Amino acid sequence: MQIGFIGLGKMGSAMAVNLAKAGHQVHAWNRSPVDAAEVPGVTIVDSVDTALDTEVVFTMLADDAAIRSVLLDSGALDTARAGLIHIVAATISVAFSKALAADHAERGLAYVAAPVFGRPDAAAAAQLNVVVAGPEDAVATITPLLETLSTKVWPLGTEPAQANAAKIAGNMMITMAIEAMSEGVALAGDNGVAADTFLDLMTGTLFGARAYQSYAPKIVSGDFTPGFKMKLGLKDLRLATELADAAQITLPVLDAVRTRMDVAVDAGMGEQDWSGIASRPYARKE
Amino acid sequence: MQIGFIGLGKMGSAMAVNLAKAGHQVHAWNRSPVDAAEVPGVTIVDSVDTALDTEVVFTMLADDAAIRSVLLDSGALDTARAGLIHIVAATISVAFSKALAADHAERGLAYVAAPVFGRPDAAAAAQLNVVVAGPEDAVATITPLLETLSTKVWPLGTEPAQANAAKIAGNMMITMAIEAMSEGVALAGDNGVAADTFLDLMTGTLFGARAYQSYAPKIVSGDFTPGFKMKLGLKDLRLATELADAAQITLPVLDAVRTRMDVAVDAGMGEQDWSGIASRPYARKE
Amino acid sequence: MQIGFIGLGKMGSAMAVNLAKAGHQVHAWNRSPVDAAEVPGVTIVDSVDTALDTEVVFTMLADDAAIRSVLLDSGALDTARAGLIHIVAATISVAFSKALAADHAERGLAYVAAPVFGRPDAAAAAQLNVVVAGPEDAVATITPLLETLSTKVWPLGTEPAQANAAKIAGNMMITMAIEAMSEGVALAGDNGVAADTFLDLMTGTLFGARAYQSYAPKIVSGDFTPGFKMKLGLKDLRLATELADAAQITLPVLDAVRTRMDVAVDAGMGEQDWSGIASRPYARKE
Amino acid sequence: MQIGFIGLGKMGSAMAVNLAKAGHQVHAWNRSPVDAAEVPGVTIVDSVDTALDTEVVFTMLADDAAIRSVLLDSGALDTARAGLIHIVAATISVAFSKALAADHAERGLAYVAAPVFGRPDAAAAAQLNVVVAGPEDAVATITPLLETLSTKVWPLGTEPAQANAAKIAGNMMITMAIEAMSEGVALAGDNGVAADTFLDLMTGTLFGARAYQSYAPKIVSGDFTPGFKMKLGLKDLRLATELADAAQITLPVLDAVRTRMDVAVDAGMGEQDWSGIASRPYARKE
Repeated sequence: MQIGFIGLGKMGSAMAVNLAKAGHQVHAWNRSPVDAAEVPGVTIVDSVDTALDTEVVFTMLADDAAIRSVLLDSGALDTARAGLIHIVAATISVAFSKALAADHAERGLAYVAAPVFGRPDAAAAAQLNVVVAGPEDAVATITPLLETLSTKVWPLGTEPAQANAAKIAGNMMITMAIEAMSEGVALAGDNGVAADTFLDLMTGTLFGARAYQSYAPKIVSGDFTPGFKMKLGLKDLRLATELADAAQITLPVLDAVRTRMDVAVDAGMGEQDWSGIASRPYARKE
Repeated sequence: MQIGFIGLGKMGSAMAVNLAKAGHQVHAWNRSPVDAAEVPGVTIVDSVDTALDTEVVFTMLADDAAIRSVLLDSGALDTARAGLIHIVAATISVAFSKALAADHAERGLAYVAAPVFGRPDAAAAAQLNVVVAGPEDAVATITPLLETLSTKVWPLGTEPAQANAAKIAGNMMITMAIEAMSEGVALAGDNGVAADTFLDLMTGTLFGARAYQSYAPKIVSGDFTPGFKMKLGLKDLRLATELADAAQITLPVLDAVRTRMDVAVDAGMGEQDWSGIASRPYARKE
Repeated sequence: MQIGFIGLGKMGSAMAVNLAKAGHQVHAWNRSPVDAAEVPGVTIVDSVDTALDTEVVFTMLADDAAIRSVLLDSGALDTARAGLIHIVAATISVAFSKALAADHAERGLAYVAAPVFGRPDAAAAAQLNVVVAGPEDAVATITPLLETLSTKVWPLGTEPAQANAAKIAGNMMITMAIEAMSEGVALAGDNGVAADTFLDLMTGTLFGARAYQSYAPKIVSGDFTPGFKMKLGLKDLRLATELADAAQITLPVLDAVRTRMDVAVDAGMGEQDWSGIASRPYARKE
Repeated sequence: MQIGFIGLGKMGSAMAVNLAKAGHQVHAWNRSPVDAAEVPGVTIVDSVDTALDTEVVFTMLADDAAIRSVLLDSGALDTARAGLIHIVAATISVAFSKALAADHAERGLAYVAAPVFGRPDAAAAAQLNVVVAGPEDAVATITPLLETLSTKVWPLGTEPAQANAAKIAGNMMITMAIEAMSEGVALAGDNGVAADTFLDLMTGTLFGARAYQSYAPKIVSGDFTPGFKMKLGLKDLRLATELADAAQITLPVLDAVRTRMDVAVDAGMGEQDWSGIASRPYARKE
């Protein structure tokens, strides 16, 4: 299939390469220059319009603003091939996802939300988990592509925003798992149980899940090289807060974790891994 | 080995039966009468002193106050056989555990903390996880007994309080996992993703761990038959708060979850499963 | 001056009567029928259009939705007299205030935000505090009217939303004062200091301010007859939360108080006075 | 009367001088040397025992530990004159106050808790507010002395801990007032209302009380020269948290403010005025 790919960061590059490996023609565009050697099999194009002159286009851009700037304000989407299916793979707001759905419908294009769970190494290994929502036909057409990238594809419904909400809620739950480990380590540590011993116990018993296993070593070592940058994590917690406000529900742990991350970003940790919120509590005793 | 067992609730009964099955002589005592048919192989004794006239005694009593009342205030512990190893398997406070350690040392008895992770069905299947801490010799002697009860025994050190702190921190993390699911379900639900779909996704990807898998079905069904009663869960969160205060550290998610559970207990849910804290947020929309 | 007045609840009625007393022709309209005897001097009109065919119109409607429904969706504002100055005296959202400003400018009407601090008795006594913001000329024209209603008029700037933000922040601070008293009473009460003794001490020393003095007697008596209904208070805390989100700042006490009020409204206290959030903590010990 | 005075910090010096001015013989002792010129009329003694060889002794020491060290561990209290009335004027924990009450009763001494509200300038002007609790006779004897120091004396009961709890709860409420202003300023500021304008409005209307008026100028200027040091404020919030734990009640705003202050102290603000917790939120936008 002829596929456009917009946004070649770590995640996007890995995904584009896997699509090419599977035999697709991938025309990829990035705002800043990309070394073609890093995306073997992928054709780098120098205009976003070329990437949109395809059957299916993925966008893996940072946030609402990046999509708005690259596709809408630039006028680029006006040049899209008729019938194009546009897959947004990044974490964007529910409000913007609804606006995109309306806008694409008006243009006669299909819009599918397909945010992914997994870090760059999972993307490279084609072991992402993809949640997908959008018009039934379009989702049916692109599901094989998503399967190329992932361990499993999770269809959630016909409204793209369903997938965005699930992704935002999932990311929120990851921050809660990180902070839970951090607080557990703090209590155990003050009572003579070392962080590695405590987290081995937890991840070896009740919490033997990826969300815990991925971050426990960072908490133990105190090495918060990203990974997923805290400033992006904070953005996602703000998206979750927007959803809570819109739903008129109060989520006290979300409030507590967002406050914690907000303080950490203020303290200059925005470029570190989001698990860096764990760095304070038990550091105090040293 | 000759073993005493004090406290035959659901957990205690299952553990006593498994010790008997393994060939030990188990002399068990309970405050209220127990049907012997429910603890096959176990000898019911009618005085706590008989249970203490053994080589090793387990106590599986509800809390600090129950141990204080049954063993200390009653004078029963004064009758213990010389050299007795006393294993406290319940979740008690760190402060009381330290007091017990000092008191037993004075009496020439050995005191070991061995709180367990797992619900009654895991106890029955001998699939608990046991954390253990106490004097080296005593721990070495009783480890085979603990192995009889569990999938794995986790030695944490020579100070009994180390095991209590780890258990309290672990229980705290379970409540955080429950509330995290609850808040995730609330966000997803308000955006058209059903609770079962969302939790299947979460427990099938990032959160494939027992702490999540055990409680997700309760959250989906809204059936909060215990399980582990919320009023006991709240007690454990108070123990965690005491540790945080003693350490002079601030744990904002602990504060938020304890507030949540406190409100739920006030609202009359104390006898339900502690996962009942998940019952409010998305119920509001109905 | 010829004045329209839309919305004759407790607050609106008192304000309309005071305007009439000051010698103005007041043409007032309310959605549900009003007994003319309760608003002496005020002319009740049976069409909102009549109220808008004036030089100045006050609206004292519950929230954004009520204004939208009565003035915009109904088309009524299309019939407004040219040059009309529209004073919105209720607490509305900053976002809606900005939309009203743009909409009125397009229509050639003047829009002024003039939310008031004070309860119905203060309104009746013409002892409100009015914060006002809007176009300079319009504010100059109506300031004498506002002075008729109040102890003091506080001009905040030329953007109507400035007054709305200040009002929302002020209401937020009142809920914090209520909860602060509630928590103080809880601590003192558990240590043998009665609620009335403690609050006499506080309001007689450090907290001798209306926000405290108004609510202390309600907390002491446990009589939460409104006053200002909790469901409206919760609405205002949601408006504050929206502002915090828009500003990308984290306000932890706002989060805590909103959670507290959310729980109380869920528990069925929405129609009681907002100081009813104080009813739980020390009630538990009884 | 012959009065001992132990602890000549800013508060203690001002109080000792006022007692001397009123015609009493004041024998004062301080751990570090004091310039006699700064405490006119007061006799500086070089042994704590001399200060305890009096009819009444005030102690104005920093915390539980200081009292324990100066009076108990040193053995000094063993030398106290028979029938001595000991007035503890500082903010100490309820638990320690109860221990002091029992200890003094055993020794045949009278112990009265008389913590004060007011900063050094109020102490110098004899305009403190004193809360007092203790044995009826002793309180009657010393009330004239307390009146010498204060605008008003507030008797709370016969258990000294009643006064300590009220003082702790009052200090807690001050931190809540500071944070409330801080959050209000943050919201208003992001919407174009300057901090000084907003706080003039608040302290000129609903919040015209000393707790607000004292700290508003610090928040506006950003000058957090103490005043009352934040590390001492945090100590008092920990005392409040201990009381909440002991009472088994959940105080969510206390949790939120303590977290906020804990973070600020961690960030190095412990020596600044406790109103420095207001420095972050609106600073972010600059």
